[in-house]
Parts: sequence; structure tokens; C-alpha cells
Amino acid sequence: MKIGRQERHSSAISTSNEETIVVRGRDLARDLIGTLSFTEHFWLLVTGAIPSAAQCRVLDATLVAIAEHGMVPSVVASRMTFAAAPEALQGAVAAGILGCGSVILGSSEGAGNLFAAIAKRADGGASIAHAAQAVLNEYRSAKRPIPGYGHPLHKQFDPRVQRLFQIAGEAGETGRHVQIAREVEGQLPGLLGKRLALNVSGAIPAVLLDAGYPVAALKGIPILARTAGLIAHLLEEQQHAIGFVMSHAAAEAIDYDGEVPAGFKA
Amino acid sequence: MKIGRQERHSSAISTSNEETIVVRGRDLARDLIGTLSFTEHFWLLVTGAIPSAAQCRVLDATLVAIAEHGMVPSVVASRMTFAAAPEALQGAVAAGILGCGSVILGSSEGAGNLFAAIAKRADGGASIAHAAQAVLNEYRSAKRPIPGYGHPLHKQFDPRVQRLFQIAGEAGETGRHVQIAREVEGQLPGLLGKRLALNVSGAIPAVLLDAGYPVAALKGIPILARTAGLIAHLLEEQQHAIGFVMSHAAAEAIDYDGEVPAGFKA
Amino acid sequence: MKIGRQERHSSAISTSNEETIVVRGRDLARDLIGTLSFTEHFWLLVTGAIPSAAQCRVLDATLVAIAEHGMVPSVVASRMTFAAAPEALQGAVAAGILGCGSVILGSSEGAGNLFAAIAKRADGGASIAHAAQAVLNEYRSAKRPIPGYGHPLHKQFDPRVQRLFQIAGEAGETGRHVQIAREVEGQLPGLLGKRLALNVSGAIPAVLLDAGYPVAALKGIPILARTAGLIAHLLEEQQHAIGFVMSHAAAEAIDYDGEVPAGFKA
Amino acid sequence: MKIGRQERHSSAISTSNEETIVVRGRDLARDLIGTLSFTEHFWLLVTGAIPSAAQCRVLDATLVAIAEHGMVPSVVASRMTFAAAPEALQGAVAAGILGCGSVILGSSEGAGNLFAAIAKRADGGASIAHAAQAVLNEYRSAKRPIPGYGHPLHKQFDPRVQRLFQIAGEAGETGRHVQIAREVEGQLPGLLGKRLALNVSGAIPAVLLDAGYPVAALKGIPILARTAGLIAHLLEEQQHAIGFVMSHAAAEAIDYDGEVPAGFKA
Repeated sequence: MKIGRQERHSSAISTSNEETIVVRGRDLARDLIGTLSFTEHFWLLVTGAIPSAAQCRVLDATLVAIAEHGMVPSVVASRMTFAAAPEALQGAVAAGILGCGSVILGSSEGAGNLFAAIAKRADGGASIAHAAQAVLNEYRSAKRPIPGYGHPLHKQFDPRVQRLFQIAGEAGETGRHVQIAREVEGQLPGLLGKRLALNVSGAIPAVLLDAGYPVAALKGIPILARTAGLIAHLLEEQQHAIGFVMSHAAAEAIDYDGEVPAGFKA
Repeated sequence: MKIGRQERHSSAISTSNEETIVVRGRDLARDLIGTLSFTEHFWLLVTGAIPSAAQCRVLDATLVAIAEHGMVPSVVASRMTFAAAPEALQGAVAAGILGCGSVILGSSEGAGNLFAAIAKRADGGASIAHAAQAVLNEYRSAKRPIPGYGHPLHKQFDPRVQRLFQIAGEAGETGRHVQIAREVEGQLPGLLGKRLALNVSGAIPAVLLDAGYPVAALKGIPILARTAGLIAHLLEEQQHAIGFVMSHAAAEAIDYDGEVPAGFKA
Repeated sequence: MKIGRQERHSSAISTSNEETIVVRGRDLARDLIGTLSFTEHFWLLVTGAIPSAAQCRVLDATLVAIAEHGMVPSVVASRMTFAAAPEALQGAVAAGILGCGSVILGSSEGAGNLFAAIAKRADGGASIAHAAQAVLNEYRSAKRPIPGYGHPLHKQFDPRVQRLFQIAGEAGETGRHVQIAREVEGQLPGLLGKRLALNVSGAIPAVLLDAGYPVAALKGIPILARTAGLIAHLLEEQQHAIGFVMSHAAAEAIDYDGEVPAGFKA
Repeated sequence: MKIGRQERHSSAISTSNEETIVVRGRDLARDLIGTLSFTEHFWLLVTGAIPSAAQCRVLDATLVAIAEHGMVPSVVASRMTFAAAPEALQGAVAAGILGCGSVILGSSEGAGNLFAAIAKRADGGASIAHAAQAVLNEYRSAKRPIPGYGHPLHKQFDPRVQRLFQIAGEAGETGRHVQIAREVEGQLPGLLGKRLALNVSGAIPAVLLDAGYPVAALKGIPILARTAGLIAHLLEEQQHAIGFVMSHAAAEAIDYDGEVPAGFKA
């Protein structure tokens, strides 16, 4: 059955014949393999253009920044899944990626949308301070969370943020989105009654939007980066398994508070 | 409940405190962000060591080689999934990754295991030709497929293979696994009665094993690379959707050959 | 790290000791296996209570109604995934379930939320007609789609709807949510300028909410039901594979509209 | 591209026109909704035939038996995933299903293959005792695990096994696969030097194969059943979240045993 409107029947990403694979208009074997780094190739795939050295440097920095942070929920879920289903490493990676959601790793996208909304408002002539205030008030009225600020562990500052801004600055790629991210950080205490430091999921969209990366592909950044970390964890899980150690500890942390049949002893 | 043996309770990938995130023994913010490319960082995550320039060049080449090849099954599945569930980009990526299995993209791992088995046999003193013959005969006896050879489109040669070997050669990283991959290619006509050209999923483990990449993490290569391609496809799907165009065409290709109730007209 | 608030550390679903498994307060082996149907057990798992015969009959009817509808996107994605990764049937099922999203199968939940919002408004004293009008106007103002109406194939009427309402009526379980669903259907032409028939994803929440099923678990209905259909498709895929036939047809339906290198011929 | 052989282009599961949906040859709305239970419908979907009352009773018993067992790894992974990505319940269910692998819930399929191999051997004229001995010796020689025996918690006996056999006996559906399952249980101490009680993943294929359920669809049983349990857990997770409590406890159970930069204090 035909679902929805179906006007377009085309894609501009890749085609091929028996001798040649074309990716984004280039001959993959002749022009891209051995010529581009994987990070440059990712930018090309997403945008259709080969990035400048500065753009690539910023993108590399964000991917390195978000690839790994120990036994976070997505890693735990992935290692448990691999312990239960070692025949399918792809399934364990998929389980980990499914945890890149709105609450945890997906907040890069949410913060990017927030900054883009403020930038758009400022395009209309408002100062960044006023634009930020207006958009933040809208978020608060709609009871929407402000993504990109605060961290359960790095409460005073997120060590990745300063470094990302430094790299972006050296690359000559910092601009108004970084400015917006800092402006929001400054306004939050007045809005929320407490300080929440800009976190890595706020810094990533700030530097990437300044570098020209598309906002609608921001969610791909933590997903791609974490895939690298998950593969490392799954190799370690093959070498010495801890997936079931973690599931046991998780289960032990939870009490049963329902009823039991007469005579049942836990 | 405690499932299986649980001697180990440790991981060597990452730890952190409030100020510092440690990844593979380094200070992430100070030593890695802005210093390593994402490809170097991936090698560090997986192996614990920073790669040489040559190792990084080979790894980059393999990731670029396998990231994208148009509307392959995993991309089709991913774009359909996104069309049906646009609220969860991570779910569409996961659906695509789940198609990196033993038949399609996972054959890099299978070919790596084949080459490693031949290399191990040759370590015992056999020539590579004899080692290959012996291992291939075992595969045939066990009716196991020979992974890494033949391609539905690139029948005469896979354009990525020559280029990967060239890059690896320039980097000074070609060695016995490349030699083994070519040896197997040469023996296949005698074994199978037809020529099957070495494909990209055979070339990738050949050059990566020569470069010192661990065989047990080979399956991560197509998974990481395709994640990049999937993100590009899902951005395009947001911009102009073709997921339901493809599901309609897929459904149209299939006839119903079961029974129907009296009076039913298709 | 501790993410979010963590006051509760308990669950009321299941506990066990070496001799006994407790599910929702009952002894699984003694009281549930062989006593409850799977549908009754599902209701018990979700709500904590054993359903009445009427509730079970309505739940059975909805699960049967939504389990299968041929080569829909989630089935296509699942069969392709299995063709590529036959070692992991669970991965192919997961890929299919990932397509139960806001656009397609997940609209049961969306329609349930719509009907619940209208019912709540009517609780405040408004007639159902007025409550529906008010809530529909809010949806339109917020440019939210009206879920549960219209179908790409069953344009005049969805054959499952009438039957579900009949079953629910026989079971004595139709009430205000069915009334609301019909009321909305009647108001849509005035609101949208065209008739859109109530579809199965609208009828399911109507009868289930009337029967006392929790609105927050509505999304589980299509997920559970489709899992049954997916398992049937994956058995057929093992018996005679069509996954790659469908991916080929899907790819053929899409043109490449990007640039090509000089001399490239498709 | 055309991958693999593509002779067949048909399916016998479902077709439809604007007025009628056909499932396994029946009119879904007229003949199945309200007539079949979900369990009967599942059997019809998988096999093409409506089950007898005895077959349905056995299938119901197995689905009830395996649907829920507390905070097992797949449930833990699913609840963590939902906590991180609450916008996509389908993703959390998928993450849970991905843990139905060869080590944990998938062993029903493995045990079914073992019993079917013994039954086939016995068809050739051997006694069940001799057939079991021969097949078990083959498994041991190939270092394959014997699936369906032993349980980390229910060491003396699995309470579900006796009840499943009782139900199957009452339904008149116990036969040689149950006999084989018990025969293997009796031979294991001699083979392994220790007693391992038949577990639920061994009992399920025994009674289902006796009832005529297809061996190639056995893996669908734990997948379908656990989907019901996962939906209940995800409703509870919405009501009071414990996903991050569990991920914190899991992470706390693991020490970091890699290097740290000078001056780092955990």
C-alpha cells in the first residue's frame, strides 16, 4: 500500500555500476579511499561537500569528546545483551544505540534546536541576550526541559566543554552558537534558581553549528561516536565478560514490593 | 540471579571523577580531544594504544571503503523504519545496524577468521599455499561458505580492493594476510569450479590484520562505517522521504500465493 | 553515576526463590501456567489483576485485529534484516518492532491519548461533542495530527473497526471512549474538509480504554501483536527467502539524482 | 543489486483489498477477530492451521511459563533503554528482545534442535536411549553445550517444568519429545559428572514439538512471551523509574583496572 505522499523517488548519496561506486558525486575507489579520513568522509556523506581542515578538526574533536564515558546505561545494556546473545555483535551494538535517546545522549540534538531557535530569533534583529531570554521563557512556559546543561557527575564544569571551545577557537570556527550557549548558561541561574554548567551535549552542537554542520544531523554525532566506544566494550566483553556481573548487581539493587503467595520466603 | 562464571569485575576502558574523564589511561579533555582524529581514537579505544600514522591510514581507508554503497538492504530497512518512527532516529540507525549480519556486512569478520586460521596453520611451518589449501578443504568438508569472495554487482573485480591494497602497500602495512587473501582467491577456481573475485569484505580484514588490528573486533569495522552512511541517509530521509516509496515497491514485488475466502478479489 | 532522581528501588512484577517464581503475587507454576491464557496473563502482567472474561475477549480481539496486514514496512524491514543476518532471529524481530512508531503502528497510543483527553474534558461537565470540539481545535492549533483516522488502503471503512466494536458491544464493554471515537469521526469532515474513516489504530484504544486497559500501555498492543506476525514471516523467510527480492525491488524504485564523475555510465 | 538466488516472489501469509484483509486464507474481520484467541491466532499465523484445543492449551502454557522472571538481563537492558529514550517505547522493547540470544532465552530453540536430532536418529530404528547417547556424544565431541538443562537459580528443579509436562499430559499432547527430554536429563550425570535439571527452555520445546509446533519457529516462543513481560515492565518504568538506579548499581559493581594519568584520584 502507498503510505503518505510519494512524490520523490530519488536519492543523491550513492550509485554504482559494475566497475565504479559513486559516493556524493565522487569515484569512491579513485577519489575517496586513501584520500579522505573517515571523519572527512562522514562530513561528505552527510553534507555532500568535503569539509575544510577547520571543519574536520571540530568534527573530530566532538566525536572524540562523546565516544566514551565508562559504564553509562547504553554501555551496560550493550554488554548485557552481548553476554546473552554473543552470536550477534550487531544486536549488542544496536541495543546500545537504542539508549541514545532524548534524556541522555540525544540531548545534543535538543540543545542544537534550542540554539538554532535563539539564533533565528536574533536574526530578526534582537540581541542574543534578548533572543535567548525570549526562547528560554517559551521553553519554561511549555514546561520543556533546557537541554545541554547540568551533568550528574561533572557538576561544577564539564571538562570536555572548555577543550571543545578551545579547539573550535583555534580552528577559527567559534561564532554565535558558542556565544548563545554561553549566554544561556549565564541566564539559567536567574531562570531556574540554580547554576547548571554547560555540558558536552550542549558544547557539541554549539561548535558544530558554528562550523556549518546541519542541525538535523546532530543526533548522528553521539550515535556515531558511541558506536566506536561500544565496539571497544564488546571486544573487552569477549575477552573477559562482565555483562552478567552487571545484570546481577542491577537486579540486586531492586526490591520486590508486590504481594507474595502464602508461605513464600524470599 | 548470577548467570555463568563471574570472576572478573573490572574494565580497563574508562573511569572518571568530577574533574577528569580517563579514557584508556589518558585524560580525555587534555590529551585526546583535539589531539587525536576520530579514527585514531577508535583504534585507541579498541586496542588501548595510539596507532601509528600507517595504521591510522589503513583504518581510515577501510572505514571509507565500506561506509556507503547505495540502497543496500540495511539502508532500505533503516529508511523505512525512520519513515514509520521519525521520533526515534536512534531506532532507525539500530534497524540498519541489525542488518550487518553473517550474510552481508559481517563477512569481514568471517573472512578475517579464515585468514587468521590460514596464518596460524602457516605458523606451524606449512607454506601459505599449503596452509590455505588445508583450511579451505576443511571449510568445504564442513560445508561452510568461503567469506570475502564474490559480489552480486562487482563480478570481475571489486574496485575497492585494489585501492585498499595500494594504500596498505604505501603505508608499508601489507603482509601475509594480504598474501593469504590473494592465495585463497587463486585457489578458489580449482576448489569451486568458478572464479570469485576478492571483495571489499575480504580486503578489509586482510589489510587490517596486517596492520595489527584485532581479529575479534573486525565486525566493528562495517558496523562503525555503515553508521556514518546511515546517518547521511536519515538526514536525506528527513529532507525528502522515500522510505514508504521503497516499502511500497518491495510489497509490490511479492505475490500472495495462499488461499483466499470465497468471492475475494485481489 | 547517578542519573536523575532515584527515590524508588522496587518493582511489583516478579520475585522468586529457588523453588517458586512469583508473578504479580501468584505462584507462576501452581496458579498461572495452565490456568490463564497468554492473553489473560498479559493483562495480569500489565495491570496486576486477572481480567474478566469480557476484558479478555476485547483484548484478544484487538491483538488478533492488529497482528498482521501483509508486507507493511515493518515486515519488509524485518525480512530483509533476517536475510542479511540469519544467525539472529531476535535481531530481525527487533528491526520490525522498531517500525512501530508514531506514524504507523504507534498511532494506537496517540489516538488513546486523544480520546482520554476528550474524556477528561467531558468529566468536567462538557458534553462529549463539545469536549471533542475543544480538544480537536487544540490539536489543530498546535498543528498536531489527529491519530486514528484514515487509511491508505481502507479508505471508505476499515473492516476491522466494525468487528471490534461489535465484539466489545457483545462483551458489554463499549462505553464513552467508543462514543468519543465515533464523535471525532463525525466532526472531522467539518474540521478537515474531508471524511477520514476511523481506522483500526483508533478502534483499538477506544474498546480497550472502555474495558479498563491502561492508556500508558496502549503502545504495547501493536508491538505484542506484530511480534506474532513477525515470527510467522520469519519462519516463512527461512522456508523460502524473499528478503533480498524485496530489497532489490525497493532499490530499483529509487533513482540517483546526484552528480557523477566524468565518464560514469549508470 | 540482486543478492543471492531470487526464484520465489511470493508469500502465503496475508493479502488484502480495500474491503477485506485475508490472513492465512481467512477473512480477518469476519472469521478471526472475536473468534480466535490471540494464542490460536499466533498458531494460525505460524502454521497456517487453526490449532486444536489441546494444542492451544499447550502453547498458552509455554507462553505463560516464559513471559516473566523478574530483573533478568533483557528486562534490565530494556528498562535502562527506556529511561534514556522515553520517546521510543518500541526501542526499549527492541533492546530487550535483542537479549533473547543463544545463551539465555534462545536456548529453547537449541534444545528443540537437540531433541529433534535425537528423534530423527530414533526414527532410524535406534531406541531413544541409544539415539540420545549417540547425539549427546556428538555434541560433546564438538564441544557444543547441551541446551535446556541447568539453571542459575532453580538448581534442584525448575518449577515450571513439572507443570508444563502435567498440562501437556492432560491435553494428551505428551509424546516422544518429552520422553527424549527426560532421557537426556537422565544421561547427563554420566556424561558431565553432575546432575543438571531440565529447565523451562528444555521443557518448552519438548511439549511444543509433541504438540506439532514447528521446530524452526521455536525461538519465537520466548521472544513473543517476553515481549508481554517487557511491556509490563515499561509501564511500571513510566510510573516509577528504576532504570537509572539499575545502571548505577551495575556500574558500581565494576572496578577500573586500567592506567590513570599522574595525579588522578578516583
